[in-house]
Amino acid sequence: MSLAPWRSPLNHALQRNRSRLESRYFQLATIRPNGTPANRTVVFRGFLEETNQLKIVTDARSQKAQQIPTHPHGEVCWYFPITREQFRLQGNLTLVDPHTPDPSLQQARCQEWQQLSDSTRRQFSWPDPAAPCDESEDFSPPALDTSQPLAQFCLLLLDPVTVDWLELRGEPQNRWLYQFNGDRTWSQQAINP
Amino acid sequence: MSLAPWRSPLNHALQRNRSRLESRYFQLATIRPNGTPANRTVVFRGFLEETNQLKIVTDARSQKAQQIPTHPHGEVCWYFPITREQFRLQGNLTLVDPHTPDPSLQQARCQEWQQLSDSTRRQFSWPDPAAPCDESEDFSPPALDTSQPLAQFCLLLLDPVTVDWLELRGEPQNRWLYQFNGDRTWSQQAINP
Repeated sequence: MSLAPWRSPLNHALQRNRSRLESRYFQLATIRPNGTPANRTVVFRGFLEETNQLKIVTDARSQKAQQIPTHPHGEVCWYFPITREQFRLQGNLTLVDPHTPDPSLQQARCQEWQQLSDSTRRQFSWPDPAAPCDESEDFSPPALDTSQPLAQFCLLLLDPVTVDWLELRGEPQNRWLYQFNGDRTWSQQAINP
Repeated sequence: MSLAPWRSPLNHALQRNRSRLESRYFQLATIRPNGTPANRTVVFRGFLEETNQLKIVTDARSQKAQQIPTHPHGEVCWYFPITREQFRLQGNLTLVDPHTPDPSLQQARCQEWQQLSDSTRRQFSWPDPAAPCDESEDFSPPALDTSQPLAQFCLLLLDPVTVDWLELRGEPQNRWLYQFNGDRTWSQQAINP
């Protein structure tokens, strides 16, 4: 696998914005069962080894995990405030849960669990997300197994097919469109901002 | 019209994050004609007077302006880095272009044009957005009429029906769901993060 051509400007943006914690966050849009769009902030967990797929983690009980099997498309919008750049990454989503048969994806899911901070791991044992609060519920569960993920822990992968890179600096601004071709190569074109 | 109950925490967030220019930007998700989600960063232009509708400006030639008449639903995801809060605002989109018959919306569109900076106004006279670059094209048009908007200038309104406010600080985090009721009131509930 070779790195897609948009990986280099994206890596530069990550480097040059690294003083801002939130530059590791982006907004992921998906489709609800009723056909309306959903949008939320998620944390970038790097790329799946030897691929151009972006890693995200999520809870099987969350709305997005429930939306993806029916509508496995997403668009990430990623804004970098220091360099004033935006990457829009459109592609296919794969949810890796305990039932995913592929052993290499299961291994990636386990590794991701192991790399989480204790406080992030704990969130997967919290009561059902988005359910009405019940003060009797327990948000301080016993310590978790750091090697084996909880059943509700999912790895979520976005495999981009179109990437739209906009640099807001400059007048006019610079904008590039990258598209994945059937032959596993990428085309690249300068487009109007 | 009374202010929706989520306006107060949103105003606080805007105040407390005002040192960051990008806290006036948010990500707007819409639906493409093929049913996949689209997501991009836009600038918050305040609220339409006497309403809870968020103002955005856009170009009639942009993909989002073309998507909205067919799929008039959107979700804004708005992350505030200093206070570590997220607002998700889901609702109906209205595109106000030169053909919109409502005179008060036409007036709002004109006022919005008048309030833009010269450099932002100029962007609406640039060549077609997302078309392949052509170096012979002119990005430096003559001065524009600051009182009458160009035909391609649109005001875009989001009228929220559901607002999901998450405060990441604290363990567990705090999360509130606001829903617009048929009787023009809002319900409000604490939900699990």
